[in-house]
Amino acid sequence: MHSIEELSKQIRNVPDFPMEGVVFKDITTLLTHPGSLRDAAHHMEEACSVFEYDAVAAIESRGFIFGAIIAADRDLPLVLIRKPGKLPAETISREYSLEYGTNTVEMHRNALPKGSRVLIVDDLIATGGSALAAADLLRRDGCTVAGAAFVIDLCFLGGGGKLRNSGVDYVGLIEVSSEQ
Amino acid sequence: MHSIEELSKQIRNVPDFPMEGVVFKDITTLLTHPGSLRDAAHHMEEACSVFEYDAVAAIESRGFIFGAIIAADRDLPLVLIRKPGKLPAETISREYSLEYGTNTVEMHRNALPKGSRVLIVDDLIATGGSALAAADLLRRDGCTVAGAAFVIDLCFLGGGGKLRNSGVDYVGLIEVSSEQ
Repeated sequence: MHSIEELSKQIRNVPDFPMEGVVFKDITTLLTHPGSLRDAAHHMEEACSVFEYDAVAAIESRGFIFGAIIAADRDLPLVLIRKPGKLPAETISREYSLEYGTNTVEMHRNALPKGSRVLIVDDLIATGGSALAAADLLRRDGCTVAGAAFVIDLCFLGGGGKLRNSGVDYVGLIEVSSEQ
Repeated sequence: MHSIEELSKQIRNVPDFPMEGVVFKDITTLLTHPGSLRDAAHHMEEACSVFEYDAVAAIESRGFIFGAIIAADRDLPLVLIRKPGKLPAETISREYSLEYGTNTVEMHRNALPKGSRVLIVDDLIATGGSALAAADLLRRDGCTVAGAAFVIDLCFLGGGGKLRNSGVDYVGLIEVSSEQ
Protein backbone atom coordinates (compact mmCIF):
# COMPACT_ATOMS: atom_id res chain seq x y z
CA MET A 1 0.00 0.00 0.00
CA HIS A 2 1.20 3.54 -0.75
CA SER A 3 2.05 5.50 2.39
CA ILE A 4 0.47 8.89 2.97
CA GLU A 5 3.84 10.45 2.18
CA GLU A 6 4.00 8.62 -1.16
CA LEU A 7 0.45 9.73 -1.95
CA SER A 8 1.31 13.33 -1.12
CA LYS A 9 4.09 13.26 -3.73
CA GLN A 10 1.57 12.27 -6.39
CA ILE A 11 -0.31 15.55 -5.99
CA ARG A 12 0.72 18.10 -8.61
CA ASN A 13 1.19 21.79 -7.88
CA VAL A 14 -0.34 23.93 -10.64
CA PRO A 15 0.68 27.58 -10.26
CA ASP A 16 -1.77 30.43 -11.01
CA PHE A 17 -4.94 28.31 -11.01
CA PRO A 18 -7.75 29.25 -10.76
CA MET A 19 -6.20 32.72 -10.47
CA GLU A 20 -2.78 34.33 -10.45
CA GLY A 21 -0.77 33.78 -7.30
CA VAL A 22 -2.69 30.67 -6.20
CA VAL A 23 -0.95 27.28 -6.26
CA PHE A 24 -3.61 24.68 -7.02
CA LYS A 25 -3.23 21.23 -5.50
CA ASP A 26 -4.16 18.92 -8.38
CA ILE A 27 -5.32 15.51 -7.18
CA THR A 28 -5.85 14.11 -10.71
CA THR A 29 -2.25 12.94 -10.86
CA LEU A 30 -2.90 10.86 -7.74
CA LEU A 31 -6.10 9.47 -9.28
CA THR A 32 -4.31 8.22 -12.39
CA HIS A 33 -1.54 6.58 -10.35
CA PRO A 34 -2.46 2.86 -10.21
CA GLY A 35 -3.58 1.80 -6.77
CA SER A 36 -3.37 5.25 -5.20
CA LEU A 37 -7.10 5.94 -5.25
CA ARG A 38 -7.75 2.70 -3.38
CA ASP A 39 -4.98 3.43 -0.93
CA ALA A 40 -6.03 7.03 -0.29
CA ALA A 41 -9.57 5.84 0.45
CA HIS A 42 -8.19 3.12 2.77
CA HIS A 43 -6.14 5.67 4.70
CA MET A 44 -9.19 7.91 5.01
CA GLU A 45 -11.32 5.03 6.29
CA GLU A 46 -8.68 4.09 8.80
CA ALA A 47 -8.38 7.68 10.04
CA CYS A 48 -12.20 7.89 10.24
CA SER A 49 -12.48 4.83 12.48
CA VAL A 50 -12.54 7.32 15.40
CA PHE A 51 -15.93 8.58 14.14
CA GLU A 52 -19.20 6.73 14.58
CA TYR A 53 -21.01 7.22 11.31
CA ASP A 54 -23.79 5.39 9.54
CA ALA A 55 -24.03 7.53 6.40
CA VAL A 56 -21.70 9.47 4.11
CA ALA A 57 -22.27 12.93 2.60
CA ALA A 58 -20.12 13.71 -0.45
CA ILE A 59 -19.52 17.27 -1.65
CA GLU A 60 -19.67 17.89 -5.42
CA SER A 61 -17.67 17.10 -7.49
CA ARG A 62 -14.37 15.56 -6.39
CA GLY A 63 -15.86 14.67 -3.02
CA PHE A 64 -18.08 12.22 -4.90
CA ILE A 65 -14.97 10.17 -5.74
CA PHE A 66 -13.86 9.48 -2.18
CA GLY A 67 -17.33 9.62 -0.61
CA ALA A 68 -18.59 6.95 -2.99
CA ILE A 69 -15.73 4.57 -2.25
CA ILE A 70 -16.10 4.95 1.53
CA ALA A 71 -19.89 4.53 1.37
CA ALA A 72 -19.60 1.49 -0.91
CA ASP A 73 -16.91 -0.13 1.24
CA ARG A 74 -19.16 0.13 4.30
CA ASP A 75 -22.54 -0.42 2.61
CA LEU A 76 -23.68 2.97 3.88
CA PRO A 77 -26.14 5.45 2.38
CA LEU A 78 -24.50 8.16 0.26
CA VAL A 79 -26.10 11.60 0.19
CA LEU A 80 -25.00 14.19 -2.35
CA ILE A 81 -24.24 17.83 -1.46
CA ARG A 82 -24.59 19.56 -4.82
CA LYS A 83 -24.35 22.84 -6.65
CA PRO A 84 -27.64 24.71 -7.11
CA GLY A 85 -30.18 23.38 -9.59
CA LYS A 86 -28.74 19.88 -9.90
CA LEU A 87 -30.95 17.95 -7.49
CA PRO A 88 -34.37 17.23 -8.99
CA ALA A 89 -36.62 16.90 -5.91
CA GLU A 90 -37.27 19.29 -2.99
CA THR A 91 -34.04 20.73 -1.61
CA ILE A 92 -32.67 22.80 1.24
CA SER A 93 -29.82 25.18 0.43
CA ARG A 94 -27.05 27.16 2.08
CA GLU A 95 -24.84 29.98 0.84
CA TYR A 96 -21.24 30.19 1.99
CA SER A 97 -18.01 32.11 1.40
CA LEU A 98 -15.19 30.27 -0.31
CA GLU A 99 -11.58 31.02 -1.12
CA TYR A 100 -12.41 32.77 -4.39
CA GLY A 101 -15.93 34.25 -3.86
CA THR A 102 -19.29 32.91 -2.66
CA ASN A 103 -21.23 29.79 -3.52
CA THR A 104 -24.32 27.78 -2.62
CA VAL A 105 -24.81 24.08 -1.92
CA GLU A 106 -28.01 22.07 -1.87
CA MET A 107 -29.19 18.77 -0.46
CA HIS A 108 -32.44 16.86 -0.93
CA ARG A 109 -34.82 17.40 1.97
CA ASN A 110 -35.34 14.19 3.99
CA ALA A 111 -32.49 12.54 2.13
CA LEU A 112 -31.53 10.40 5.14
CA PRO A 113 -33.42 8.94 8.12
CA LYS A 114 -33.62 11.46 10.99
CA GLY A 115 -30.82 10.92 13.48
CA SER A 116 -28.36 9.59 10.90
CA ARG A 117 -24.74 10.12 11.96
CA VAL A 118 -23.08 11.45 8.86
CA LEU A 119 -19.44 11.61 7.75
CA ILE A 120 -18.81 14.56 5.41
CA VAL A 121 -16.27 13.77 2.66
CA ASP A 122 -14.46 16.01 0.20
CA ASP A 123 -11.11 15.87 -1.55
CA LEU A 124 -9.82 19.08 0.02
CA ILE A 125 -10.48 21.53 2.84
CA ALA A 126 -9.46 25.14 2.20
CA THR A 127 -11.35 27.84 4.13
CA GLY A 128 -13.92 25.23 5.20
CA GLY A 129 -16.92 27.02 3.69
CA SER A 130 -18.42 24.12 1.77
CA ALA A 131 -17.90 21.63 4.61
CA LEU A 132 -19.50 24.01 7.13
CA ALA A 133 -22.41 24.58 4.75
CA ALA A 134 -22.78 20.81 4.32
CA ALA A 135 -22.81 20.38 8.11
CA ASP A 136 -25.51 23.03 8.40
CA LEU A 137 -27.66 21.33 5.75
CA LEU A 138 -27.32 17.93 7.42
CA ARG A 139 -28.25 19.32 10.83
CA ARG A 140 -31.23 21.20 9.42
CA ASP A 141 -32.37 17.92 7.88
CA GLY A 142 -32.34 16.17 11.27
CA CYS A 143 -28.95 14.47 11.09
CA THR A 144 -25.89 14.57 13.34
CA VAL A 145 -22.48 15.30 11.86
CA ALA A 146 -20.18 12.51 13.02
CA GLY A 147 -17.05 14.00 11.47
CA ALA A 148 -15.44 15.02 8.23
CA ALA A 149 -12.64 13.65 6.08
CA PHE A 150 -10.47 15.21 3.38
CA VAL A 151 -7.54 13.99 1.34
CA ILE A 152 -5.82 17.39 1.45
CA ASP A 153 -5.92 19.93 4.28
CA LEU A 154 -4.70 23.41 3.31
CA CYS A 155 -3.91 24.11 6.97
CA PHE A 156 -2.69 27.66 6.32
CA LEU A 157 -6.23 28.69 5.31
CA GLY A 158 -7.67 27.70 8.67
CA GLY A 159 -10.75 25.78 7.51
CA GLY A 160 -10.10 22.91 9.90
CA GLY A 161 -10.15 25.21 12.93
CA LYS A 162 -13.49 26.65 11.83
CA LEU A 163 -14.91 23.15 11.42
CA ARG A 164 -13.81 22.14 14.93
CA ASN A 165 -15.21 25.40 16.36
CA SER A 166 -18.58 24.44 14.93
CA GLY A 167 -18.40 21.03 16.61
CA VAL A 168 -17.18 18.99 13.64
CA ASP A 169 -14.02 16.97 14.19
CA TYR A 170 -12.17 16.03 11.03
CA VAL A 171 -9.23 14.18 9.52
CA GLY A 172 -7.06 15.45 6.66
CA LEU A 173 -4.65 12.89 5.19
CA ILE A 174 -2.17 15.26 3.61
CA GLU A 175 -1.42 18.51 5.38
CA VAL A 176 -0.21 21.46 3.33
CA SER A 177 1.16 24.05 5.70
CA SER A 178 2.08 26.91 3.36
CA GLU A 179 1.20 28.33 -0.04
CA GLN A 180 4.64 27.22 -1.43
CA MET B 1 -27.19 -8.55 -2.91
CA HIS B 2 -29.92 -6.41 -4.47
CA SER B 3 -30.97 -7.67 -7.90
CA ILE B 4 -30.95 -5.27 -10.82
CA GLU B 5 -34.74 -5.26 -10.68
CA GLU B 6 -34.68 -4.26 -7.00
CA LEU B 7 -32.17 -1.50 -7.77
CA SER B 8 -34.36 -0.22 -10.60
CA LYS B 9 -37.24 0.23 -8.16
CA GLN B 10 -35.05 2.50 -6.01
CA ILE B 11 -34.77 5.05 -8.80
CA ARG B 12 -37.24 7.88 -8.39
CA ASN B 13 -39.16 9.47 -11.25
CA VAL B 14 -39.24 13.27 -10.90
CA PRO B 15 -41.66 14.82 -13.39
CA ASP B 16 -40.88 18.12 -15.16
CA PHE B 17 -37.16 18.22 -14.34
CA PRO B 18 -35.05 19.86 -15.63
CA MET B 19 -37.89 21.14 -17.86
CA GLU B 20 -41.62 20.62 -18.30
CA GLY B 21 -42.56 17.32 -19.89
CA VAL B 22 -39.32 15.53 -19.00
CA VAL B 23 -39.39 12.72 -16.43
CA PHE B 24 -36.04 12.79 -14.62
CA LYS B 25 -34.59 9.49 -13.41
CA ASP B 26 -33.27 10.38 -9.95
CA ILE B 27 -30.56 8.01 -8.79
CA THR B 28 -30.10 9.71 -5.40
CA THR B 29 -32.79 7.49 -3.87
CA LEU B 30 -30.74 4.46 -4.89
CA LEU B 31 -27.58 6.03 -3.43
CA THR B 32 -29.17 6.53 -0.01
CA HIS B 33 -30.54 2.97 0.07
CA PRO B 34 -28.08 1.01 2.25
CA GLY B 35 -26.02 -1.44 0.23
CA SER B 36 -27.42 -0.44 -3.15
CA LEU B 37 -24.45 1.65 -4.24
CA ARG B 38 -22.12 -1.27 -3.58
CA ASP B 39 -24.45 -3.67 -5.37
CA ALA B 40 -24.98 -1.43 -8.40
CA ALA B 41 -21.20 -1.09 -8.79
CA HIS B 42 -20.81 -4.87 -8.45
CA HIS B 43 -23.40 -5.48 -11.16
CA MET B 44 -21.62 -2.98 -13.41
CA GLU B 45 -18.26 -4.65 -12.85
CA GLU B 46 -19.74 -8.04 -13.59
CA ALA B 47 -21.34 -6.78 -16.81
CA CYS B 48 -18.04 -5.11 -17.77
CA SER B 49 -16.05 -8.33 -17.44
CA VAL B 50 -16.56 -8.71 -21.22
CA PHE B 51 -14.38 -5.63 -21.73
CA GLU B 52 -10.59 -5.63 -21.40
CA TYR B 53 -9.79 -2.38 -19.68
CA ASP B 54 -6.85 -1.11 -17.66
CA ALA B 55 -8.13 2.37 -16.82
CA VAL B 56 -11.45 4.04 -16.00
CA ALA B 57 -12.74 7.41 -17.28
CA ALA B 58 -15.51 8.95 -15.19
CA ILE B 59 -17.81 11.66 -16.53
CA GLU B 60 -18.60 14.60 -14.20
CA SER B 61 -20.39 14.59 -11.82
CA ARG B 62 -22.45 11.49 -11.05
CA GLY B 63 -20.15 9.37 -13.18
CA PHE B 64 -17.45 10.07 -10.59
CA ILE B 65 -19.44 8.01 -8.08
CA PHE B 66 -19.49 4.75 -10.02
CA GLY B 67 -16.22 5.32 -11.88
CA ALA B 68 -14.36 5.81 -8.62
CA ILE B 69 -15.70 2.60 -7.08
CA ILE B 70 -14.87 0.51 -10.15
CA ALA B 71 -11.37 2.02 -10.43
CA ALA B 72 -10.71 1.53 -6.71
CA ASP B 73 -11.99 -2.05 -6.74
CA ARG B 74 -9.56 -2.92 -9.54
CA ASP B 75 -6.64 -0.67 -8.55
CA LEU B 76 -6.89 1.08 -11.92
CA PRO B 77 -6.08 4.67 -12.90
CA LEU B 78 -9.10 6.99 -12.83
CA VAL B 79 -9.22 9.85 -15.33
CA LEU B 80 -11.77 12.64 -14.97
CA ILE B 81 -13.86 13.94 -17.88
CA ARG B 82 -14.91 17.36 -16.62
CA LYS B 83 -16.88 20.47 -17.38
CA PRO B 84 -14.88 23.36 -18.86
CA GLY B 85 -12.49 25.29 -16.63
CA LYS B 86 -12.30 22.72 -13.84
CA LEU B 87 -9.06 20.93 -14.74
CA PRO B 88 -6.01 22.97 -13.78
CA ALA B 89 -3.35 21.73 -16.22
CA GLU B 90 -3.28 21.56 -20.04
CA THR B 91 -6.53 20.11 -21.42
CA ILE B 92 -8.13 18.92 -24.63
CA SER B 93 -11.82 19.66 -25.08
CA ARG B 94 -14.85 18.55 -27.10
CA GLU B 95 -18.24 20.16 -27.65
CA TYR B 96 -21.30 17.94 -27.99
CA SER B 97 -25.08 18.11 -28.23
CA LEU B 98 -27.06 16.86 -25.28
CA GLU B 99 -30.69 16.25 -24.54
CA TYR B 100 -31.35 19.83 -23.45
CA GLY B 101 -28.79 21.96 -25.39
CA THR B 102 -25.02 21.83 -26.01
CA ASN B 103 -22.10 21.32 -23.69
CA THR B 104 -18.34 20.85 -23.57
CA VAL B 105 -16.17 18.33 -21.75
CA GLU B 106 -12.46 18.46 -21.04
CA MET B 107 -9.72 16.03 -20.11
CA HIS B 108 -6.10 16.59 -19.10
CA ARG B 109 -3.71 16.05 -22.01
CA ASN B 110 -1.49 12.98 -21.46
CA ALA B 111 -3.62 11.95 -18.51
CA LEU B 112 -3.02 8.24 -19.12
CA PRO B 113 -0.19 6.20 -20.68
CA LYS B 114 -0.57 5.94 -24.46
CA GLY B 115 -2.37 2.75 -25.44
CA SER B 116 -4.41 2.55 -22.23
CA ARG B 117 -7.65 0.60 -22.71
CA VAL B 118 -10.27 2.74 -21.03
CA LEU B 119 -13.72 1.97 -19.67
CA ILE B 120 -15.99 5.04 -19.78
CA VAL B 121 -18.38 5.27 -16.80
CA ASP B 122 -21.39 7.46 -16.15
CA ASP B 123 -24.60 7.05 -14.20
CA LEU B 124 -26.86 7.42 -17.22
CA ILE B 125 -26.85 7.36 -21.00
CA ALA B 126 -29.44 9.53 -22.74
CA THR B 127 -28.60 10.77 -26.26
CA GLY B 128 -25.00 9.60 -25.78
CA GLY B 129 -23.42 12.99 -26.39
CA SER B 130 -21.17 13.13 -23.35
CA ALA B 131 -20.02 9.51 -23.69
CA LEU B 132 -19.20 10.01 -27.39
CA ALA B 133 -17.32 13.20 -26.53
CA ALA B 134 -15.40 11.32 -23.81
CA ALA B 135 -14.53 8.58 -26.31
CA ASP B 136 -13.26 11.20 -28.74
CA LEU B 137 -11.08 12.84 -26.08
CA LEU B 138 -9.60 9.51 -24.99
CA ARG B 139 -8.77 8.52 -28.56
CA ARG B 140 -7.23 11.91 -29.31
CA ASP B 141 -5.06 11.42 -26.22
CA GLY B 142 -3.73 8.10 -27.55
CA CYS B 143 -6.01 5.69 -25.68
CA THR B 144 -8.35 2.93 -26.86
CA VAL B 145 -11.93 2.87 -25.65
CA ALA B 146 -12.53 -0.62 -24.25
CA GLY B 147 -16.22 -0.07 -23.54
CA ALA B 148 -18.65 2.01 -21.55
CA ALA B 149 -20.92 1.35 -18.58
CA PHE B 150 -23.99 3.13 -17.24
CA VAL B 151 -26.40 2.44 -14.42
CA ILE B 152 -29.39 3.69 -16.43
CA ASP B 153 -29.91 3.44 -20.19
CA LEU B 154 -32.68 5.68 -21.55
CA CYS B 155 -33.02 3.35 -24.57
CA PHE B 156 -35.76 5.43 -26.20
CA LEU B 157 -33.28 8.27 -26.76
CA GLY B 158 -30.98 6.08 -28.83
CA GLY B 159 -27.63 7.03 -27.26
CA GLY B 160 -26.53 3.40 -26.99
CA GLY B 161 -26.95 2.84 -30.73
CA LYS B 162 -24.83 5.90 -31.48
CA LEU B 163 -22.12 4.65 -29.14
CA ARG B 164 -22.04 1.24 -30.84
CA ASN B 165 -21.97 2.91 -34.28
CA SER B 166 -18.84 4.73 -33.21
CA GLY B 167 -17.21 1.47 -32.16
CA VAL B 168 -17.89 1.64 -28.42
CA ASP B 169 -19.69 -1.35 -26.95
CA TYR B 170 -21.49 -0.66 -23.68
CA VAL B 171 -23.53 -2.07 -20.84
CA GLY B 172 -26.51 -0.38 -19.19
CA LEU B 173 -27.78 -2.03 -16.02
CA ILE B 174 -31.28 -0.63 -15.97
CA GLU B 175 -33.05 -0.12 -19.28
CA VAL B 176 -35.77 2.51 -19.47
CA SER B 177 -37.71 1.94 -22.67
CA SER B 178 -40.18 4.83 -22.68
CA GLU B 179 -40.64 8.32 -21.25
CA GLN B 180 -43.35 7.02 -18.80
